Amino acid sequence: MDAHLDLLSSLSRKTGSRIVLVVMDGVGDIPVEELEGRTVLEAADTPHLDRLAARSALGLLDPVMPGVTPGSGPGHTALFGHEQTTHLVGRGVLEGLGIGFEFTDIDVAARFNFATLDAQGNVTDRRAGRIDSESATALCARLQEAIPSVGGAEVIVRPVKEHRGVVVFRAEGLGANLPDTDPQVTGVPPLAPHALDQASQATAAAAAEFVERAGELLRGEDRANTLLLRGFARYDPLPSFGDVFKLSAVAIAVYPMYRGLASLAGMQIVDAGSSLLDQVEALRGAWEGHDFFFLHVKKTDSHGEDGNWKAKLEVIEEVDRVLVPALLDMGPDVLVFTGDHSTPCALESHSWHPVPVLLSASTVRRHGAGGFGERACATGSLGRFRGKYLMPMMMGYAGKLLKFGA
Amino acid sequence: MDAHLDLLSSLSRKTGSRIVLVVMDGVGDIPVEELEGRTVLEAADTPHLDRLAARSALGLLDPVMPGVTPGSGPGHTALFGHEQTTHLVGRGVLEGLGIGFEFTDIDVAARFNFATLDAQGNVTDRRAGRIDSESATALCARLQEAIPSVGGAEVIVRPVKEHRGVVVFRAEGLGANLPDTDPQVTGVPPLAPHALDQASQATAAAAAEFVERAGELLRGEDRANTLLLRGFARYDPLPSFGDVFKLSAVAIAVYPMYRGLASLAGMQIVDAGSSLLDQVEALRGAWEGHDFFFLHVKKTDSHGEDGNWKAKLEVIEEVDRVLVPALLDMGPDVLVFTGDHSTPCALESHSWHPVPVLLSASTVRRHGAGGFGERACATGSLGRFRGKYLMPMMMGYAGKLLKFGA
Repeated sequence: MDAHLDLLSSLSRKTGSRIVLVVMDGVGDIPVEELEGRTVLEAADTPHLDRLAARSALGLLDPVMPGVTPGSGPGHTALFGHEQTTHLVGRGVLEGLGIGFEFTDIDVAARFNFATLDAQGNVTDRRAGRIDSESATALCARLQEAIPSVGGAEVIVRPVKEHRGVVVFRAEGLGANLPDTDPQVTGVPPLAPHALDQASQATAAAAAEFVERAGELLRGEDRANTLLLRGFARYDPLPSFGDVFKLSAVAIAVYPMYRGLASLAGMQIVDAGSSLLDQVEALRGAWEGHDFFFLHVKKTDSHGEDGNWKAKLEVIEEVDRVLVPALLDMGPDVLVFTGDHSTPCALESHSWHPVPVLLSASTVRRHGAGGFGERACATGSLGRFRGKYLMPMMMGYAGKLLKFGA
Repeated sequence: MDAHLDLLSSLSRKTGSRIVLVVMDGVGDIPVEELEGRTVLEAADTPHLDRLAARSALGLLDPVMPGVTPGSGPGHTALFGHEQTTHLVGRGVLEGLGIGFEFTDIDVAARFNFATLDAQGNVTDRRAGRIDSESATALCARLQEAIPSVGGAEVIVRPVKEHRGVVVFRAEGLGANLPDTDPQVTGVPPLAPHALDQASQATAAAAAEFVERAGELLRGEDRANTLLLRGFARYDPLPSFGDVFKLSAVAIAVYPMYRGLASLAGMQIVDAGSSLLDQVEALRGAWEGHDFFFLHVKKTDSHGEDGNWKAKLEVIEEVDRVLVPALLDMGPDVLVFTGDHSTPCALESHSWHPVPVLLSASTVRRHGAGGFGERACATGSLGRFRGKYLMPMMMGYAGKLLKFGA
């Protein structure tokens, strides 16, 4: 644990109060021309959120730091209380979490691309002509069957989408300090796996053997006749919610990556179904016996990435209609609506813009905001703060932090 | 010094400008029902502060971090420029400061409770029936006379209030890494003092001898027949105001603990009398020859702790009437009104809510705030910031910090 978590761990105590954190993925936005300069969140018809905002505290959070655009990993681990610069979830692991792969503590994961080599062994296509998912899935099954292990390490091969997959090496003592074997350009051979430290030498040997045997197996393929490995990463669980915050936390997320990130942070994962209504029911079912609830709404981000402001607006309105009254009815002591980053429709991507936060608790300073939106949050009583401070704020308002010093 | 103070120390320069820091202890609050949702500070009739606010910069500060409730020690050392996680004033020392004990640099202090043991040596009452202050004072005098030293360490015993006291061990090289001897429950014997590191072994031996001889002396007492020790702490002065900020600082505080905290930070202590008017006169008397003035107002906190919003409001109105015009009349270059933490009347305790700040200087960005209160501060031009940044801000506005880098 770093100093930030050490301090919080020393102050955290178990109480009967409950915290509900609703993450509307990518909810933050910038003005949309068709909405007369309002953002999607500002323009959405959200009577329940508006009433709640009037008696809540609003603010803006920077998941990592002002100006920095977070990926889903850093966005979420910041909301879970972690300093970003000390604990970044590696890309190989994140890709595995995204397909619901269940890691163990000794795993090293890498992403891979199926790719094309010419007769001289030079890369001619780094994505094997973007072969379709079905073909890639069949190739992965063949690789898995032919290569169950390399050296002393178990090998697990999983398809992701099109030419992309994940390979996991499972053995005690594997390091993950290896650069990519993807040369990033065509006309040259793939790089050989090589270790940047002592602990990663066994991993480099395992990866080299895996790539060589995969190459033999794929020799007859037109396009997908080799693998390029990227983003080697150890599965490195975060200090757990139970240890740091004395919380019994549960995640209600539909998409595998967010279940995986929550699991990495020490939360229990429950079946969340597929709709917001399912998620409400899952949360209700977990109410007894837990005191922290992370509810993840994916589609605000997906529609932002598509630049579809109408669809994003409809998701927000559905959150307002379905989630807000049901959650208020359960009576959490602290209820927060926020995002893990902004995904402005106009940019069709994650962005660095700070993220709106609504924090509802009996002891907040209310400013009587007219609604929940970027403008109201910029002048809210919570001000602007780093993502890692959301956890202590929720803990404080829930009465779960002891006084620091006498 | 940590990196924060190192940087400030390298930039600080001596000038003729003067800074006045008024700390209204626990001034921050949350909406009070009887005040129609306004806070005490918002509702108080404060024409001088309101006029000052209109031409000042406002903001909110978090003494330690968002969500964390500071004790008086961390609250003040943050205002004096110190990073909280690196320099926590120990409880034994803070208790000693609270009764005006003058520490030396080699002292180790512990709080103690008079307690009751049964014939088998088990604790039956951890507070000796909360014996009255007069009886405890007499017992302390007997202990002091009978036990002037243990091993090579001088012993100083002081009563605090009722069953509580402070013992100081004074000798070169004493560590303070010892857990409490208070077992926290009855029906078991007190814990023996034991050292958690090499440097604390002499302290453990001294504490063991002290407790044993005290037990012999108190054997005939009905209730107060032993001592339980808690909160061992070294007296560990902060890097001084003179060294870090090139300031000649003076503290005008009525209550011993705040004089002690100021002394710990290297300020000179002057007689502050007992009223706000006395404090103004003391400040005026120290004006020549000093350039930093810490003026502490206690009763905003005391009344907050009692849940007495009317009395808290009256103290704020007295500050407005008595302090503000007199201080403005002296013409400080920088004048700040803030608190060391919030003490909401509705909670009757310190809290984690950020603290209002008013900073008056000729070069501030004025927002024409209508008054000094939590709402105005949340949208003020200073934003929300960590307590340790108040010192550099005051120094900057006072023209006492050199440009950093070329």
